[in-house]
Amino acid sequence: MQRFFPIFDWAPGYGRQALASDLLAAVIVTIMLIPQSLAYALLAGLPAEVGLYASIAPLVIYAVFGTSRSLAVGPVAVVSLMTAAAIAPLAAQGTPEYLGAAIALAVLSGLMLLAMGLLRLGFIANFLSHPVISGFITASALLIAAGQIPTLLGVSATGQTIPSLLASLGGAMGQVNPWTLGLSLLALLLLWSARTRLAGVLARSSVAPGLAKVLVRAAPVLAVALSILAARMFDLEAKGVALVGAIPTGLPLPALPPFDPALWQAIVLPAAMIALVGYVESVSVAQTLAAKRRQRIDPDQELVALGLSNIGAGVSGGYPVTGGFARSVVNFDAGAETPAAGAFTALGMALATLMLTPVLAHLPKATLAATIVVAVLGLVDMRALGRTWKISRADAVAGSVTLAATLLAGVEPGIATGVALSLLLHLWRTSRPHFAVIGQVPGTEHFRNVARHHVVTVPEVLSLRVDEALYFPNARWLEDTVMAHIAADPRIRAVVLNCVAVNDVDSSAVESLEAINARLGDAGVTLHLAEVKGPVMDRLRHTSLLAELTGGVHLTQFDAMLCLAPEVAQGTRALPRGETARR
Amino acid sequence: MQRFFPIFDWAPGYGRQALASDLLAAVIVTIMLIPQSLAYALLAGLPAEVGLYASIAPLVIYAVFGTSRSLAVGPVAVVSLMTAAAIAPLAAQGTPEYLGAAIALAVLSGLMLLAMGLLRLGFIANFLSHPVISGFITASALLIAAGQIPTLLGVSATGQTIPSLLASLGGAMGQVNPWTLGLSLLALLLLWSARTRLAGVLARSSVAPGLAKVLVRAAPVLAVALSILAARMFDLEAKGVALVGAIPTGLPLPALPPFDPALWQAIVLPAAMIALVGYVESVSVAQTLAAKRRQRIDPDQELVALGLSNIGAGVSGGYPVTGGFARSVVNFDAGAETPAAGAFTALGMALATLMLTPVLAHLPKATLAATIVVAVLGLVDMRALGRTWKISRADAVAGSVTLAATLLAGVEPGIATGVALSLLLHLWRTSRPHFAVIGQVPGTEHFRNVARHHVVTVPEVLSLRVDEALYFPNARWLEDTVMAHIAADPRIRAVVLNCVAVNDVDSSAVESLEAINARLGDAGVTLHLAEVKGPVMDRLRHTSLLAELTGGVHLTQFDAMLCLAPEVAQGTRALPRGETARR
Repeated sequence: MQRFFPIFDWAPGYGRQALASDLLAAVIVTIMLIPQSLAYALLAGLPAEVGLYASIAPLVIYAVFGTSRSLAVGPVAVVSLMTAAAIAPLAAQGTPEYLGAAIALAVLSGLMLLAMGLLRLGFIANFLSHPVISGFITASALLIAAGQIPTLLGVSATGQTIPSLLASLGGAMGQVNPWTLGLSLLALLLLWSARTRLAGVLARSSVAPGLAKVLVRAAPVLAVALSILAARMFDLEAKGVALVGAIPTGLPLPALPPFDPALWQAIVLPAAMIALVGYVESVSVAQTLAAKRRQRIDPDQELVALGLSNIGAGVSGGYPVTGGFARSVVNFDAGAETPAAGAFTALGMALATLMLTPVLAHLPKATLAATIVVAVLGLVDMRALGRTWKISRADAVAGSVTLAATLLAGVEPGIATGVALSLLLHLWRTSRPHFAVIGQVPGTEHFRNVARHHVVTVPEVLSLRVDEALYFPNARWLEDTVMAHIAADPRIRAVVLNCVAVNDVDSSAVESLEAINARLGDAGVTLHLAEVKGPVMDRLRHTSLLAELTGGVHLTQFDAMLCLAPEVAQGTRALPRGETARR
Repeated sequence: MQRFFPIFDWAPGYGRQALASDLLAAVIVTIMLIPQSLAYALLAGLPAEVGLYASIAPLVIYAVFGTSRSLAVGPVAVVSLMTAAAIAPLAAQGTPEYLGAAIALAVLSGLMLLAMGLLRLGFIANFLSHPVISGFITASALLIAAGQIPTLLGVSATGQTIPSLLASLGGAMGQVNPWTLGLSLLALLLLWSARTRLAGVLARSSVAPGLAKVLVRAAPVLAVALSILAARMFDLEAKGVALVGAIPTGLPLPALPPFDPALWQAIVLPAAMIALVGYVESVSVAQTLAAKRRQRIDPDQELVALGLSNIGAGVSGGYPVTGGFARSVVNFDAGAETPAAGAFTALGMALATLMLTPVLAHLPKATLAATIVVAVLGLVDMRALGRTWKISRADAVAGSVTLAATLLAGVEPGIATGVALSLLLHLWRTSRPHFAVIGQVPGTEHFRNVARHHVVTVPEVLSLRVDEALYFPNARWLEDTVMAHIAADPRIRAVVLNCVAVNDVDSSAVESLEAINARLGDAGVTLHLAEVKGPVMDRLRHTSLLAELTGGVHLTQFDAMLCLAPEVAQGTRALPRGETARR
């Protein structure tokens, strides 16, 4: 029960003190969330109110099913961009079909997350490596920021990639609206200085650090309020400044996604990518925050919670959501103690939807664009590539290629490239496990790498220590390596595979071992196994390998050598010089 | 030079004895290859002569670039089926567009193989695990055999999957041609008894085993000759028996594939799958045969050779080829010593194309269908699943799902399912590496798994030994595991990661270690590293981890314990009962 309804972990002991903390956090997060929800909905190409709707039901659902005490779910920048990229080819912005596709996308990615959670497939998030995620997030942030330029200038231009956007912008530069541009610059200045300076000013004014952080995050609300004021005072709409426009008042009605098989088929892949990226982002945030209070999240249950949140977002007229970094940190810093804070935030958003929409209609779109630009530039981390380069060049190349693919070809090809590169790199690494030719440390029963230690070997016996589990990615490598050694040295009469570090084998590896055994047999060489671990031996017992093994199974490497070259193992036969180092 | 032209390995020392052996092998393989080439071309939906063309140029090219001494390349059953599945949606059988698509498919999969070879990406074959390959091959063989039923009955029915084939057959059963059916049964009986009985009969007649094997393999030629005779004597064509029909005499002219971007885009994925499956099949055969004579093949050069062979097949009017199992074994058994045997076989096939085609025109298609059925039934291995089940249930499930997907949805969805399952299983396994909580063996400096040995631990210190390289698939697991232990036991003040078995780290793992360090720091727990290997330490030195590490780096686990719990490590502090076993 508690596994699937983590609310029972905390609700029974919910007291007045937690209620007060959660209520305060909810008020602060609500203030931050109002402009963000509107802005991200516009980024996704949707009407502004859809962002508000997506910030109500998902929060309540996450409060019931989520295992993080601080995560705040709702619309986020990268997922909004991915939503726009997924739907743009299917329907025109502003049509009911476009909204229907967004709802279907939320429901389908929610169903995928839910299924992965129930099947405990959280490990699927491993399809993406860190450098690839980092490259993708940075490129997405740059794409999002660039995508706001037309709105900031008051011109109409679109594009899903940097080249197409630049081409479209180039043709529209004659129509820049000076009022819009002026408003954009003021909003950017206000937001940027709040972000970079305000914290310092507040710290010097001895404002409590927690409150200071919250105030900094609330700057967009100030920008929104001032812009609305300016728009009404100077009648900016008449001067060509685009406003958000009439927002329907009232809560969303429950709705089912359109049941059009062609639509669902077209969004399967985008929905999977949104589920993957949203989950990876959300779990990282949740884990970081949980650790600070020595709490724990359950990654598989998080899949369930995010899946249900997305289904809830869809059927309440919203679009794909996930746990956002900025708002979760604000929620945490503002003192949220339980997921109830999220439910109270939902209440706040519902009140805003009911009461604030007439005011928000006068909000210039350029202000929201400025909010987005300042928010996403914090996600850009170009130096990450440099740091990665120092650790692993292959990783850095994977990250750069993902970044370039996303900028030049769009988010979907970008994330697909990233997944493919992550898997390729993983296969490449695991297809060449660490191994060593080993020899005996003279006078002992120890065996060490011939390349690093002064050890004794016998030309007739090749001893290989494999330092990893034997799985299908390295099964072929094992065959190649053993056969290459045999072909290179006709003196070899026996091969000893030292399996001390082999923790597991799969059926491909067993077949490879059988093939090696048979091929060595054809070549007149016996195959021996030494130091096989218990679980591995259990698996081998079910195969014909042990029955057909041309050599023996030895408890230790020393036992194997005692059997194959007793005089040498016991140190009674002197070896000629040069026989002691074979690679 | 020798790396890219393995012909220089053997051509300079080529002598009369090798020439004689190679010529004999070539004659035998040519006899076997004539009916097979015709049959597989029909299986691919192509005119019969395309099979002959595909058995000329590729063999000469492989002789120059291949590293196997015995591999015989040409049309094979599974690749022919995949070719038919790839082109069927693009063009109608018998049209020039269909042939053009087959040629483009050969060239494109050849270019892919060549590129993989030049980039030394042979490890990509690891995308497929053994049980998945086995399931795919068995299902393909069943599909191929079922696909011959209409030809054997003399009715017209088609289908790329078992259900569609059965539905199509159901409607056509009224038109069964008795003459065709009779011929089919006779051919099947002849071929089957040759396959199952002839070897035994020949052995009892004391025919040399090598020759006996060759005679068994030549049975299809007898069936072909008898069928042609029967067709002419009884004028079977007039009785409704379908014949191969006029085959153009003469060698193929060099041709370029059609340059239609839409066509090339449509065949990218099928070409990749054909390249992958063809390469895996070919390399397995080549390795098995090379080992028997203690020779060696170079998997990356094999990619180059197969790639060029396929490009050659395409531009000489053929279709995708690969190294075939049956013909390579015959080539080997017949005594082929060098790839020159392949070149001589090509000569034989060219002569056949020039001279035998008028005769072959009278060959009933049903005989070729019978040849295919008997050939592919040898590929069906249903018991493999049972053997796999005993070793690994996950592998057996992956193999069964691939088998079912191939039978029910066709070869392309089948192989795609197989690749996806192989990767999923691999990620699943590598996302949960083997690890152990370790404690000190009392009175020693050794540390062992607390679950298996009687060891001493301290509640304030958690010592974890990770038994695998740290890569992105298990990076998240590492975070989860460490944080779960910390959340479960509030007494822990220090975590020691014992890295003795960690052979490598990638940048995702480094980021995870940094995250763990920071999160543990937030929770008031220090992180220590012990027994870090040289190459891993080199990578860590380029990061900020060592500078930010809240604990220390210790040469040995004992050093770490000496530093963290000196009295216990030295055995001078007694521990309360029950403190010695933590999981």
